[in-house]
Amino acid sequence: MPDFPVTSRNAVKRLPKRAHFDPETIYSILDEALICHVAFVQESQPFVIPCLFARLDNTLLLHGAKASRMMGYIQSGGPVSVSVALIDGLVIARSVFHHSVNYRSVVLFGQGRLVDDPQEKMRALEIITEHILPGRWAEARKPNRKEMNATSVVSIPIESATAKVRTGPPGDDEADYQMPIWAGILPLKLQTLAPINDPLLTGDYPVPPYVLNYKRGQ
Amino acid sequence: MPDFPVTSRNAVKRLPKRAHFDPETIYSILDEALICHVAFVQESQPFVIPCLFARLDNTLLLHGAKASRMMGYIQSGGPVSVSVALIDGLVIARSVFHHSVNYRSVVLFGQGRLVDDPQEKMRALEIITEHILPGRWAEARKPNRKEMNATSVVSIPIESATAKVRTGPPGDDEADYQMPIWAGILPLKLQTLAPINDPLLTGDYPVPPYVLNYKRGQ
Repeated sequence: MPDFPVTSRNAVKRLPKRAHFDPETIYSILDEALICHVAFVQESQPFVIPCLFARLDNTLLLHGAKASRMMGYIQSGGPVSVSVALIDGLVIARSVFHHSVNYRSVVLFGQGRLVDDPQEKMRALEIITEHILPGRWAEARKPNRKEMNATSVVSIPIESATAKVRTGPPGDDEADYQMPIWAGILPLKLQTLAPINDPLLTGDYPVPPYVLNYKRGQ
Repeated sequence: MPDFPVTSRNAVKRLPKRAHFDPETIYSILDEALICHVAFVQESQPFVIPCLFARLDNTLLLHGAKASRMMGYIQSGGPVSVSVALIDGLVIARSVFHHSVNYRSVVLFGQGRLVDDPQEKMRALEIITEHILPGRWAEARKPNRKEMNATSVVSIPIESATAKVRTGPPGDDEADYQMPIWAGILPLKLQTLAPINDPLLTGDYPVPPYVLNYKRGQ
């Protein structure tokens, strides 16, 4: 796949060596993330909202209540920016200045449209459900007509995107390496704890393997 | 402290019972989060950028490279929206429609200013460093004049804010409780792994206790 074109919108002015424009890097970050942050504008006021999402090919899928401000805006075709950020660790340097985090992030741009074809909409909800918890769609009760009517789905083709990735140890100034203090990385990751039964379970139903073995990313 | 006033900007149209406007709830979420997402507008195009931050009283502090697009915008006093989201678990319902996540999020609004008084700026950098890794400021080399000149700090008084919080088990439709499938919560949390020494350590320096015992939130 060709890289996303670099324009004034997605060019990286700061630390350009961290930037990636290839779809493989960008898609892998989107696919690992559980939530994204969507920015939009109303009467010159920016809004940013966290939400669940999924990727289908070069498109983001979002769902939300029909009445929501964000869904109304996206349906109207206004420009949006979406960010996803995965934090992999604290970068603990000798100097305050070189402290950082290891991360993988994507900032992308596009304009959405309402998904109103019933089959396409059902498929989008399946993709979103499977993005969050692969395996669940087949077992859960599918949306009925009333639930479909209460839910909006929008599709946002990715026009432009940038990934930024930082990995590895701190990079201190030459003179600071002699300082007698510890430096290094504190890795962070998303941890899955033991599943908790719904207290209203009506039978002795086992926890499904896709819940027991849940993980995101590597 | 009084609640943040509810206006059209921060009113919660969807699921208003999840909304909180009291500073205690809002500040506790901000203080636990490692990163925020900042939205701003340039020529009608929204941008959203992940960044490190800290809270000081009713103000957000951000730092960044002097040359960055975001810092330039915030210094100019344009309106920003900032979101912070902590994901506490997957809510696994019997129906697709009632799937959700347990989360604690804040969306806030304000307009920033450049922090250019050297003492106030140094103090802001200390607060940001201590927000990310409490205990590190005292040990690390403080920013020198060149580093201070390369860094911008902005302060954004919180004019308006909303927290949204979802906790607890799924809430399914009455009829669905008879379905013979498991439902419940899969708790998620930020996990700290073993620290990794910088390969360029010049001595046998021990990992500091504030790194070994690092955690965010409860």
